[in-house]
Amino acid sequence: MRPVAVLGIGQTKVDEHWGKSLRELGGEAVFAAMQDAGLQQADALFVGNMLSPLINHQNHLGGYYADWVGMWGAEAVKVEAACGSGAAAFRAALMAVASGEVEVAIALGVEKMTDKAGREVTAALATAADADYEVDQGVSFVGLNALIMRRYMHQYGWKHADFAPFSLNAHENALHNPNARLHDRISLEKFEKSPMVATPINLLDASPIGDGAAAAILVPAEKVSALRGRPRIRVAASAAATDTIAVHNRPDPLFLQAAYQSARQAYQMAGICPQELNFFELHDAFSIMSALSLEACGFAERGQAPRLGLEGTIKIGGGLPVCTRGGLKARGHPVGATGMYQIVEVVQQLRGECGATQVQGARLGMAQNIGGSGASILTHILQAE
Amino acid sequence: MRPVAVLGIGQTKVDEHWGKSLRELGGEAVFAAMQDAGLQQADALFVGNMLSPLINHQNHLGGYYADWVGMWGAEAVKVEAACGSGAAAFRAALMAVASGEVEVAIALGVEKMTDKAGREVTAALATAADADYEVDQGVSFVGLNALIMRRYMHQYGWKHADFAPFSLNAHENALHNPNARLHDRISLEKFEKSPMVATPINLLDASPIGDGAAAAILVPAEKVSALRGRPRIRVAASAAATDTIAVHNRPDPLFLQAAYQSARQAYQMAGICPQELNFFELHDAFSIMSALSLEACGFAERGQAPRLGLEGTIKIGGGLPVCTRGGLKARGHPVGATGMYQIVEVVQQLRGECGATQVQGARLGMAQNIGGSGASILTHILQAE
Repeated sequence: MRPVAVLGIGQTKVDEHWGKSLRELGGEAVFAAMQDAGLQQADALFVGNMLSPLINHQNHLGGYYADWVGMWGAEAVKVEAACGSGAAAFRAALMAVASGEVEVAIALGVEKMTDKAGREVTAALATAADADYEVDQGVSFVGLNALIMRRYMHQYGWKHADFAPFSLNAHENALHNPNARLHDRISLEKFEKSPMVATPINLLDASPIGDGAAAAILVPAEKVSALRGRPRIRVAASAAATDTIAVHNRPDPLFLQAAYQSARQAYQMAGICPQELNFFELHDAFSIMSALSLEACGFAERGQAPRLGLEGTIKIGGGLPVCTRGGLKARGHPVGATGMYQIVEVVQQLRGECGATQVQGARLGMAQNIGGSGASILTHILQAE
Repeated sequence: MRPVAVLGIGQTKVDEHWGKSLRELGGEAVFAAMQDAGLQQADALFVGNMLSPLINHQNHLGGYYADWVGMWGAEAVKVEAACGSGAAAFRAALMAVASGEVEVAIALGVEKMTDKAGREVTAALATAADADYEVDQGVSFVGLNALIMRRYMHQYGWKHADFAPFSLNAHENALHNPNARLHDRISLEKFEKSPMVATPINLLDASPIGDGAAAAILVPAEKVSALRGRPRIRVAASAAATDTIAVHNRPDPLFLQAAYQSARQAYQMAGICPQELNFFELHDAFSIMSALSLEACGFAERGQAPRLGLEGTIKIGGGLPVCTRGGLKARGHPVGATGMYQIVEVVQQLRGECGATQVQGARLGMAQNIGGSGASILTHILQAE
């Protein structure tokens, strides 16, 4: 594989974009990324999306966006791995450039979810789980995560409030991100009194859905020197792994095997140990997922990740800042776009563009995107050079 | 890119598989391909599918199939380009191996369409077209093709019966393919008297939908020598291109620009001219698409492709046999699987495994898979060595 760099990034605010169509939303992110990269042309487009057939009655997003953004004739395809679709599109773009098949690739993550009623969105999201052996039993996606969280609390003796720091940190960081969906500081009291969704997961354990799009431009690293005074952002590692699609088939439902495997592989590729990372954009769809991801990636012993929240390690200025732009919890979780928001945010940190939540001296950042209840996990490490 | 070869192939019959689940159907093709390749393990799985969110209430087919076929932990992702999803999955697998990221990749195309009523399938298929500017006007997918065919007949002066040879040839060839959906010989009289679907497209201009799955195993070519007396099947070329998603935005709706572009690029990669090809598995979703594909790929002048049917060029033994295993018209068109059926059939021809419809001395074969009304087109050339 030839080395690949991220030359440009773009994003929309995560919001209820009722005034914008699916095509406008994705187009905005692509145009912003092209402008940021200083390019007018690209060879191929890889679109990460999960729900457009169900929510927007539109398949075929590759051709759809290539047409809309003026890439007439260019290769374009959609990539889907449930809520891991964004990072899957990034990895597909990466392989296209790394293989030498493509010189300039765009990875776009896009999702427009708020045009349908909540129950329809819940049903659509459940297509990430096993239709035959999970969904047909009546379990929703939040229900699966609630079962996992309850088991974790039982097994390791944590109480619900111990998970609060994950959500408080995300909301705190999102205050400084204009593209975040939520801009409200929350307290431990508010966290504890929040309405219950599926015991023990309450509203402030859960990330909000939303409409949004984020994009990145990938090119061969050798073609990028210090551009306009910015550091070169190289993709130091990319790894993807899977686990059983149904949670009940895992020997240990409290261990994200695919996170462990893809992270370990990513560390090897980048030639680093986890402690060398300056920050981590993790997939906090639910607060329990923050804990499981941190443990699987080697930052805490099994059952001990809540300590990283309680001790302040995850905050800006701590040993391993997470969700520095608000994470899924407060930036928002437009499912097929989320993985690309994480990539964009890692690039922002490595460029030093994050203002009040800037991680000082950030040189190595990791993003981890999770599809389903941990069945598809992609880990990327980016490095400023 | 390092050269890549197809080591194994597998397929199910195209049929109404009401007794098999989506996972069983895809699993059958993968297991058959692994057995054919003599392998027990693979590193990554690329699944081509279009309709499972809408028809089977199941997204996340990468993780879903990796789990079912026992590839626990392996990278797996879904790729979608409407009816071009199968070839798009093949191309994704190809780039993964070519980039050096993966040693053994499986490309699977799978679709299970017959579990829903016809009107629901028609609505699902329409998600390949432009939801805002085509489908909202009430035009279905067959409706779009009917408009194109009517214009073609008007512009070039052909009558409906002139398209018959495309369908007659497909049905004739399918008689010898045990995996084909239809096994009936049709006559010109039957073709002309067939019930109308959308004027001028009647039932025998149109391919039948179906349930089916087809798979191939891709490995670095250098790892394959003459295996068990079989020729080595190398991927000599792979190219993808797009066109406007809405037909009405094309300067010339009778020219498949993306077919022209991807075929031209494929010829360049393979270092051949079109006349060197021994056969062509084209995308005859409707008889008009056969004509447009043949013209765009350089086998006939504009408006003259029906001659290739009327003069027998497309038959086994003719100058350019097409749809040698029945094509979409008679093998059947399980949409997201079709592109992989084409690849599997090209490999069968290059191995000399096609019995009564064997193209003698076949050494170079092409497959072209079309998504939407020509908006996503992928062209592959395989070569026996």
